[in-house]
Amino acid sequence: MRFKDFVMSDTTMNPLSTWVEVPKNSDFTIYNLPFGVFKNKRLSPRIGIAIGDKIVDLSVLDQEGFFSDMFLPEGIFLNEALNELISLGKTQTKKIRERVQELLLADNEKLRDHSIRGKVMVNRKEAEMLLPVKIGDYTDFYSSMEHATNVGKMFRDPENALLPNWKHLPVGYHGRASSIIPSGVPIIRPKGQFKDPDMDVPGFGPSKRLDFELELAFITGKPTKLGDSIGTEEAEDYIFGFVLFNDWSARDIQAWEYVPLGPFLGKSFASSISPWVVTLEALEHFRTAGPKQEPEVLPYLQCTSNHSFDLQLEAYIQPENVKQATKVCTSNFKYMYWNVAQQLAHHTVNGCNINVGDMMASGTISGPTEDSFGSMLELSWKGTKPVKLDSGEERKFIEDGDTVIMKGFAEKDGIRVGFGEVRASVLPAK
Amino acid sequence: MRFKDFVMSDTTMNPLSTWVEVPKNSDFTIYNLPFGVFKNKRLSPRIGIAIGDKIVDLSVLDQEGFFSDMFLPEGIFLNEALNELISLGKTQTKKIRERVQELLLADNEKLRDHSIRGKVMVNRKEAEMLLPVKIGDYTDFYSSMEHATNVGKMFRDPENALLPNWKHLPVGYHGRASSIIPSGVPIIRPKGQFKDPDMDVPGFGPSKRLDFELELAFITGKPTKLGDSIGTEEAEDYIFGFVLFNDWSARDIQAWEYVPLGPFLGKSFASSISPWVVTLEALEHFRTAGPKQEPEVLPYLQCTSNHSFDLQLEAYIQPENVKQATKVCTSNFKYMYWNVAQQLAHHTVNGCNINVGDMMASGTISGPTEDSFGSMLELSWKGTKPVKLDSGEERKFIEDGDTVIMKGFAEKDGIRVGFGEVRASVLPAK
Repeated sequence: MRFKDFVMSDTTMNPLSTWVEVPKNSDFTIYNLPFGVFKNKRLSPRIGIAIGDKIVDLSVLDQEGFFSDMFLPEGIFLNEALNELISLGKTQTKKIRERVQELLLADNEKLRDHSIRGKVMVNRKEAEMLLPVKIGDYTDFYSSMEHATNVGKMFRDPENALLPNWKHLPVGYHGRASSIIPSGVPIIRPKGQFKDPDMDVPGFGPSKRLDFELELAFITGKPTKLGDSIGTEEAEDYIFGFVLFNDWSARDIQAWEYVPLGPFLGKSFASSISPWVVTLEALEHFRTAGPKQEPEVLPYLQCTSNHSFDLQLEAYIQPENVKQATKVCTSNFKYMYWNVAQQLAHHTVNGCNINVGDMMASGTISGPTEDSFGSMLELSWKGTKPVKLDSGEERKFIEDGDTVIMKGFAEKDGIRVGFGEVRASVLPAK
Repeated sequence: MRFKDFVMSDTTMNPLSTWVEVPKNSDFTIYNLPFGVFKNKRLSPRIGIAIGDKIVDLSVLDQEGFFSDMFLPEGIFLNEALNELISLGKTQTKKIRERVQELLLADNEKLRDHSIRGKVMVNRKEAEMLLPVKIGDYTDFYSSMEHATNVGKMFRDPENALLPNWKHLPVGYHGRASSIIPSGVPIIRPKGQFKDPDMDVPGFGPSKRLDFELELAFITGKPTKLGDSIGTEEAEDYIFGFVLFNDWSARDIQAWEYVPLGPFLGKSFASSISPWVVTLEALEHFRTAGPKQEPEVLPYLQCTSNHSFDLQLEAYIQPENVKQATKVCTSNFKYMYWNVAQQLAHHTVNGCNINVGDMMASGTISGPTEDSFGSMLELSWKGTKPVKLDSGEERKFIEDGDTVIMKGFAEKDGIRVGFGEVRASVLPAK
């Protein structure tokens, strides 16, 4: 029985089991099998699939003929990015993932008892994870109503927190692709201009209000031509998978620069992503209805099926020299008012073309309760309510030496599928 | 005598002459020699240099050993984009351009009298020009004070047209790279949401206010690392060259979507660029002082030398079935309040990294007079003053079937260096 068959029927509760040892609460179960790009001291960059504490080296499986019936391009897995693999199309990438799942099932001896097994299964903790895709264009949406409302309350009119366009279209903007970095790479506190309310003229220096934004991003898997649009019900054909996304933000720089053309240097210094791309197929079991949209949206944004997913998202802060990270936020991807199908339909309704490897982030995902707000701006309410950490320290924003960690996972019917984490420490400004 | 020597001394007025026939008023003189990527019915994509009505096929020159002392990577000119060539660095690309200039001088017989000459010199009118670079990230600035003032007067407060940040930093935003297309490719009128003042709820359909924006863009030629910044006086080392840039805009879509995160679908449906990249070196002779900046800018934006260029920029509209295009705007690159060195210094001051092939556009360049405004929005003052065309027709915005043409050139001391043109016709919405 393969994953596909399993999730097709929620009543068929025969859990899959694997011969790989998967720790309890691992995000990388037999149901997940995300794609990533890794290297280690011995191995050059290559594509793998994560399970438990291991990585399945797909290039070795390929060399040994485990995919020979699929007629894959030579060396497809010996690649520094997933783009070429993704470009083969969903039919192929699904087949590859399902083949790996078959090979990992407890009663399948083909790899389990093969002499090559030791070479195929690489230790995750010895691997360095690279940026999984060469990112073309990057777009950031603003699709959580709670987040947009909180920001509106703080910076505009508390009585009319949402701007007039917000419930009619998924507001979004183009971001900087070059500075998207994989988990583990430290970020440097950005310098820039700011003008605090008490200043007559703008000042310059390291940002004093460095923040995270808890987001999820999808990676496009199929190109369109300039002039073409994608309908909501075909949109998921164009989505390969998802990663956690920390949209680092310098609030003081952003506040001064952003009128009238939007965020720029307050964002472009870095964005961190988790390295394992969780496929859309792996999230199928956690599909759910999104918030009711009122007023009714225009026809090109209407959906006839569910495109939201019940995924818990968490943010943690770990100060330097403190052993334990403190969870400061628990949110959920299902809070998004605008779903991924609507985002993609909107993005292309004007004929804007997409390429394989474009990244589209959700925007900060905040929930309805104060502990579900997805940024320090909201959690500390613009710095007026410091957040207490387990170490006794307090934070209004992120300080030098702090590590910010984000996690995300779905769990239902004993099935867990997760993203691992995205983490980055903050170095002082240069 | 080479170009370099020539322009180093303005008093040395010995004009260069070439054995290639260069029509009067050609933009592609012996002083220019821009790089581009072309193909034709016989030839696969390759890199050339334009002179007069010809293209010098650099791949043939290379095969014949004309660059053998430079130890260039094999097949460097048989390329679909300039990125790899540009990545060799300015020292190399300058040498290549100077070698071509030498070979084209009237008294140099090496190519002139060589049997290969016919194969090297390709007719421009038989060539199809491709996008010259694979664009990484694209940024659009907003650096003309007259343009920002006009927009501010129309949409905000006529008495306080410029926003408070405008004179302190070069306002900019990230744009969509995937939809940047070369001259000649038609654009399709975009569809989208808009909400005119008389509408209670937003509508959907083809844009009714399609506009051009007259801009120039530079292409970066040298990468930086994440965390590094570029100073104003080293910025030009990172600039390879320039192209004309038509930042197509759907004003009605833009007006409804742009708060608070900036332009998105009102821009991302297409941007057109001229195919020949005019190098920074070719523009050296036309360097000039920019507008005085008052109040004084922060130290990281201060310049000790001139980074503005005296380049005339023009926009034309040619309706369908009309033989002659009407010039609707004459502007100049020197009107930019913020120069390219300041733009690049600002862009990287927060540590944002750049790559070879990034594109940074100026924003609409408007001058002080009504005939120098660089968009229909300004020329027709928000549609209140229709622009008369030579055919007797009027335009408030761009109509289906119209072709918009932009030209740009510098001329001084009998030396002319130009961009050719960027043109695109507008097809009806799908």
